[in-house]
Amino acid sequence: MFFEGAEKKLEIIVSKEHQPLYEKPEAFWKELVENCEATILSSIRNDKQIAFLLSESSLFVWDDRILMLTCGQTKLIKSAEFFIDSLGKDSVDCLFFQRKNEYRSHLQTSDFIQDAQFLAGQIEGEALRLGKMHSHHTQLFHTTKAFKPIQEDRTCELLMYDMAPEVISFLTREDLTKEEIRKLFQFEELLPGFELDDFVFKPYGYSLNGIRGEDYFTVHVTPQETSPYISFETNLKICEKSQVLLHQILEILRPFSFDVMTFNCSTEFDFGNNYMKTIHVQDKLDIGYDVHFRYYNKKTDAPEKVYRYKELI
Amino acid sequence: MFFEGAEKKLEIIVSKEHQPLYEKPEAFWKELVENCEATILSSIRNDKQIAFLLSESSLFVWDDRILMLTCGQTKLIKSAEFFIDSLGKDSVDCLFFQRKNEYRSHLQTSDFIQDAQFLAGQIEGEALRLGKMHSHHTQLFHTTKAFKPIQEDRTCELLMYDMAPEVISFLTREDLTKEEIRKLFQFEELLPGFELDDFVFKPYGYSLNGIRGEDYFTVHVTPQETSPYISFETNLKICEKSQVLLHQILEILRPFSFDVMTFNCSTEFDFGNNYMKTIHVQDKLDIGYDVHFRYYNKKTDAPEKVYRYKELI
Repeated sequence: MFFEGAEKKLEIIVSKEHQPLYEKPEAFWKELVENCEATILSSIRNDKQIAFLLSESSLFVWDDRILMLTCGQTKLIKSAEFFIDSLGKDSVDCLFFQRKNEYRSHLQTSDFIQDAQFLAGQIEGEALRLGKMHSHHTQLFHTTKAFKPIQEDRTCELLMYDMAPEVISFLTREDLTKEEIRKLFQFEELLPGFELDDFVFKPYGYSLNGIRGEDYFTVHVTPQETSPYISFETNLKICEKSQVLLHQILEILRPFSFDVMTFNCSTEFDFGNNYMKTIHVQDKLDIGYDVHFRYYNKKTDAPEKVYRYKELI
Repeated sequence: MFFEGAEKKLEIIVSKEHQPLYEKPEAFWKELVENCEATILSSIRNDKQIAFLLSESSLFVWDDRILMLTCGQTKLIKSAEFFIDSLGKDSVDCLFFQRKNEYRSHLQTSDFIQDAQFLAGQIEGEALRLGKMHSHHTQLFHTTKAFKPIQEDRTCELLMYDMAPEVISFLTREDLTKEEIRKLFQFEELLPGFELDDFVFKPYGYSLNGIRGEDYFTVHVTPQETSPYISFETNLKICEKSQVLLHQILEILRPFSFDVMTFNCSTEFDFGNNYMKTIHVQDKLDIGYDVHFRYYNKKTDAPEKVYRYKELI
């Protein structure tokens, strides 16, 4: 069974008078999540943020912003609509709505253009594609209202495809525990000091949120053999540190290919000779974000065998 | 406006008692084509084959087989159904039905699995995927009835994506003539002795069939800036000659990436340092075909700018 692992992503930054967002009642977040047809599984919080683990990915709430990632067939645009309707469009200082290229888009209930058109009807903005239509790309709607992001406002997404066969075999074991998955990823060594909240799906699949002060990281694993996918995202000060972190994650998972999407990160990534950068799109948005989309893949040596479908009739 | 350039492909080889196929009345081919919601634009013939140029790609008819390529939102599976119903399933010695990964599959009326399931209900066969779900791949249904292809039964497909900007600019000029496009491709120099039949679509797009005895080649151009795509396919004796031919075509069009799909061709392609082979799938099918799917792409140097959608609201 195919599952669309590639996330849709919504980030909204609100004006001063609507802060702090994390003081809104839990019922508000529950309704926000239900609007996209996901549910809250659990949550953790500290004095800077709340992190909700969802049936399809994650929701983070800080003082001034929310970040919501959902995968599968969720309708994230409906959560955006609910948020804008609830707080009023003037509350929104900045909004990003992002969709990665999907692999079975006919199973989705809308496409990016439809979503972007809907948003453009609500709030002034523009839509971009970063990457190649015929290869990896991500599509982004963002508001065009004057805005200046704070210095700490940076994001790094590492989206990995077709991990090494041993990794897939391990992650598709049906009796896996959280502890075993945490050990594979070496979260405690690589990202010390984070409070973790995770969930193992049946028959497989795994989601994790980690928080430490204002920092977060989130990991979502869709290990299905037809389309193995793992996403990692963080607001850690990647410009100095995360290149090493990304190397370490790649070394553990050994994907065939991966995307690196960054907002306000000036690092020139170098992943050595194992991976070749085949796509690199960069732009400076007027609203103060330097965006980069990169796609790397391996060179192939020995030919592989075909994949034989077992599901006919 | 997005147009799905990637072709669906049907090849059917019939048993002796149904040959020669090319003697069937033109009304039969017209109906076959109408079944997938395409139309015949023109045709050329010699004593070995008929080549129909279609509103969405091509149909070739030989003594013992048909080859049909259609793109856009055509329902090629309906033509397969019509053919099997008309001649009876025992007439079919061998059938291939192939679909490349599509980029906006939600605009398609069926997906490959549905088509393969339909075919499996009509005729014994199996379904394969060659390539990565998260990258380029092609999917193939083929009959499993015992079969031995003739020695000349070989095919090479060269599917090119995101050609050089000058090439795209040229191909999206609205007043282009056949002669100008033929000159760009240098068909007369590269493939001498072929009778040609071609059509320029409005506002742009181009299709060509070429025949010479039993040989054919066919070219389909979808130059739209959001998803530029050109396909080239031939049954020429590629194992000795076409590597040079493919090099020449690539030199003219300079795509960012391309697939090479071959049936019964033992050449080890080498496209030099400009392109890296990132996917290679190979298998020997029990029905006598050695299939290869390869995907090559360029390394990127300077970052590109984002693509800004103009079509919002």
